[in-house]
Amino acid sequence: MTNPTLQLDFNLSTAEQIGGGGLQRADLEALAPVVAQAHQALTQGRREGRIAFMDLPGQTAAIDEAVALGRELGAQFENLVVLGIGGSSLGPKALYKALKHPFVSLLPASQRGGARLFFPDNSDPSTFAGLLEVLDLKRTAFAAITKSGGTAETWAQLLHVSSQLDATARQKQIVAVTDPKVGALRAVATKEGWRTLPVPPAVGGRFSVLTPVGLLPAAAAGIDVAALLKGAANMAKRCEATTLFENPAYMLASVLHWFHTQHARPIHVLMPYVDALRETGDWFVQLWGESLGKKKGREHVGPTPVRAVGATDQHSLLQLLMEGPQDKVVVFVTAETPREELTIPHGFSDQPDVAYLGGHRFSKLLNTEQYATSVALAANGRPSITIRLQKLDAFAMGELMMLWEVATAFSGPLYGINPYDQPGVEAGKRYTCGLLGRPGYEGAKAELEARPALKRDWLL
Amino acid sequence: MTNPTLQLDFNLSTAEQIGGGGLQRADLEALAPVVAQAHQALTQGRREGRIAFMDLPGQTAAIDEAVALGRELGAQFENLVVLGIGGSSLGPKALYKALKHPFVSLLPASQRGGARLFFPDNSDPSTFAGLLEVLDLKRTAFAAITKSGGTAETWAQLLHVSSQLDATARQKQIVAVTDPKVGALRAVATKEGWRTLPVPPAVGGRFSVLTPVGLLPAAAAGIDVAALLKGAANMAKRCEATTLFENPAYMLASVLHWFHTQHARPIHVLMPYVDALRETGDWFVQLWGESLGKKKGREHVGPTPVRAVGATDQHSLLQLLMEGPQDKVVVFVTAETPREELTIPHGFSDQPDVAYLGGHRFSKLLNTEQYATSVALAANGRPSITIRLQKLDAFAMGELMMLWEVATAFSGPLYGINPYDQPGVEAGKRYTCGLLGRPGYEGAKAELEARPALKRDWLL
Repeated sequence: MTNPTLQLDFNLSTAEQIGGGGLQRADLEALAPVVAQAHQALTQGRREGRIAFMDLPGQTAAIDEAVALGRELGAQFENLVVLGIGGSSLGPKALYKALKHPFVSLLPASQRGGARLFFPDNSDPSTFAGLLEVLDLKRTAFAAITKSGGTAETWAQLLHVSSQLDATARQKQIVAVTDPKVGALRAVATKEGWRTLPVPPAVGGRFSVLTPVGLLPAAAAGIDVAALLKGAANMAKRCEATTLFENPAYMLASVLHWFHTQHARPIHVLMPYVDALRETGDWFVQLWGESLGKKKGREHVGPTPVRAVGATDQHSLLQLLMEGPQDKVVVFVTAETPREELTIPHGFSDQPDVAYLGGHRFSKLLNTEQYATSVALAANGRPSITIRLQKLDAFAMGELMMLWEVATAFSGPLYGINPYDQPGVEAGKRYTCGLLGRPGYEGAKAELEARPALKRDWLL
Repeated sequence: MTNPTLQLDFNLSTAEQIGGGGLQRADLEALAPVVAQAHQALTQGRREGRIAFMDLPGQTAAIDEAVALGRELGAQFENLVVLGIGGSSLGPKALYKALKHPFVSLLPASQRGGARLFFPDNSDPSTFAGLLEVLDLKRTAFAAITKSGGTAETWAQLLHVSSQLDATARQKQIVAVTDPKVGALRAVATKEGWRTLPVPPAVGGRFSVLTPVGLLPAAAAGIDVAALLKGAANMAKRCEATTLFENPAYMLASVLHWFHTQHARPIHVLMPYVDALRETGDWFVQLWGESLGKKKGREHVGPTPVRAVGATDQHSLLQLLMEGPQDKVVVFVTAETPREELTIPHGFSDQPDVAYLGGHRFSKLLNTEQYATSVALAANGRPSITIRLQKLDAFAMGELMMLWEVATAFSGPLYGINPYDQPGVEAGKRYTCGLLGRPGYEGAKAELEARPALKRDWLL
């Protein structure tokens, strides 16, 4: 196993650091039976092939196929537009934003190191029409990504794109990433002769970043996919340990669950002090929220994930984190060495608010702010966890994403729910189909019509 | 008063629609004394000049000055970089993203209608170095924005920019937006001969979007500032009504407060079904979270704001909203008419998952999804409020931002706290100064050193 570059620090969650509401070793030792049970559920699912995400880094043939096609698109096209939403967009978007130049779309083509990626992950026409205005259609490929093959937002976009290209151009410029056998996109792609890549049926959408869903766009953009997978494999290996203090994902999940259930802290704030991890925060919100927010008999459970970015949100959410209700745990992420460094020049040194900054590196300011914030929270009795990366590179992203995926899978049994389904989103889809006149959904439309009428009194 | 274009719909918060946990008219009538008190606090503060944000749209001279300088920068420079963080960045960024083309930076210069704006609102060196790599320094102006004049992140960036320009270029390319009299930026700008614009002392950072903080960048980008201010003035006028059912901001604040305190729903999710309002969500999070998250004697109060975007987050947070804990209220925002429209072409009509989409407008799909989601929540006993815009234009943005600002100011007295301060962020700042060796902060450093040492046991 390669040396890990990711470290978790739980010190500022302990009673020694934050006082009465904090963790003690005994609290975690008491969890041993629950941990054993959750571990058992995970390993058994894995052995039976029902839970496949931890084993993705070893799927060499599938990886090679996705990377080869991605590289080919990246070499042939200036742009790759991902037509996908939710799990079909958040993973590749997180990778692209984390690992490419922050303004890669504005760099000269020779400096981009791959295709520019775009993620119009919505049915908002202003975004999609606006995007097509700035791209040269002939130099643009489209990855239609939907695991089920029937996602409405993705089809709306794909129908539009299809209508702009003739059959030959479609075969060249459209790639379909979907279930290997079933669904509308598989059927259409087969009939039309589009190139396709499979999403393994045993991997849920929000756990799919290391399938072709994430790997095809990443390879097209020139991301070091091998290092990404190596980092993920490394973390998956670390997360096979059976004891909490040796398993970073189990520990992370258990500590967050403990604070939720023992100290009524249901809000989990992921706050990287790295701009490039902003969209990884969005990916986390889906992974954590959609996996764990569930009906459990007559109860409703699940933490609420919140995404922030430091130091920026010290000027936004921090006041609430420091003095608002004691209902949150903050998980910081830091990178010791930034991708690019700047030193603050000396200047205007007659101003005390300015003089002390000169000579420090920007990264020193940023990381000092993170540390100062975490200690200020601790001094105020508020827990945090810090995930430390040596540097935000592809290997570290592999570690970080696998860490959260295992933590999510492990949290399912802790909360006593199935982390792999999302039954709650069906009702809205049925109503949408009913309202758009889809045959077979007349019942949904009738349900809507049977509801009480909206009253003018409640309109302002 | 011009006709309002913004409408609030509280139907899906009512007991008639969502059952037992919903609002009845009597619940709001019972609030009359509290409402009268909060109204009194707001109007008195306004009369005494302590609360100035509602009156900003009438400050013609200040507006004209900011707009003239903004237009001048927009005509002279290709780019305007805002050096600011928190309240000095979130407002102008929200306006820019809401009102300009979604990919304006990639449009040819002739189609942009003003300067490109950039908001590197962090001390992350990778972002700032990356930004400076893609901009032509000679064609770039910098707006240093800090109300206090002493913000560390902003000074780090300003020191770097200053070191790259000679004194003459600095006078031409740097504009300072800060307190009219005090602070380091005011002092330096005066000495160096930079152009300046004032931030009115009686307007807090997070309420400052209609001061030069927001107006200078907006004017540089070619946004219709007059329409923005007209919309804001219109809403400010509507928000002078003393009764709940006539005052949209009071009603919005009261309903959210009622669900929080009477039904333990402390999480407020702002979920526009308009991509361009994504950053308005970030602006809302600061406004709501930093204003209302406060220590109140020995209690800690305040709702937790969460930003989402539909339909995108139907594939992320919706599962949690539908089946997770009953601790949230969703506030939707919709636009009846999109900026640009697309129609979904017919095609692949042998596939039932695809066929029903053909012929519908994209905006019809998007707005149907919003309605379907809101009813699905209601059918599940979960409340929502919908803010409807006819179209997302400058007038509507003025209405929307003033609505939330008045709602925030009004919520202060409801929660029994001061919505205009942020005392909780000082501790972290002190520690940062101590760690960076700022004279006078030796005590903060000593406090840190006196804390219990971190233990290796808690590192994984």
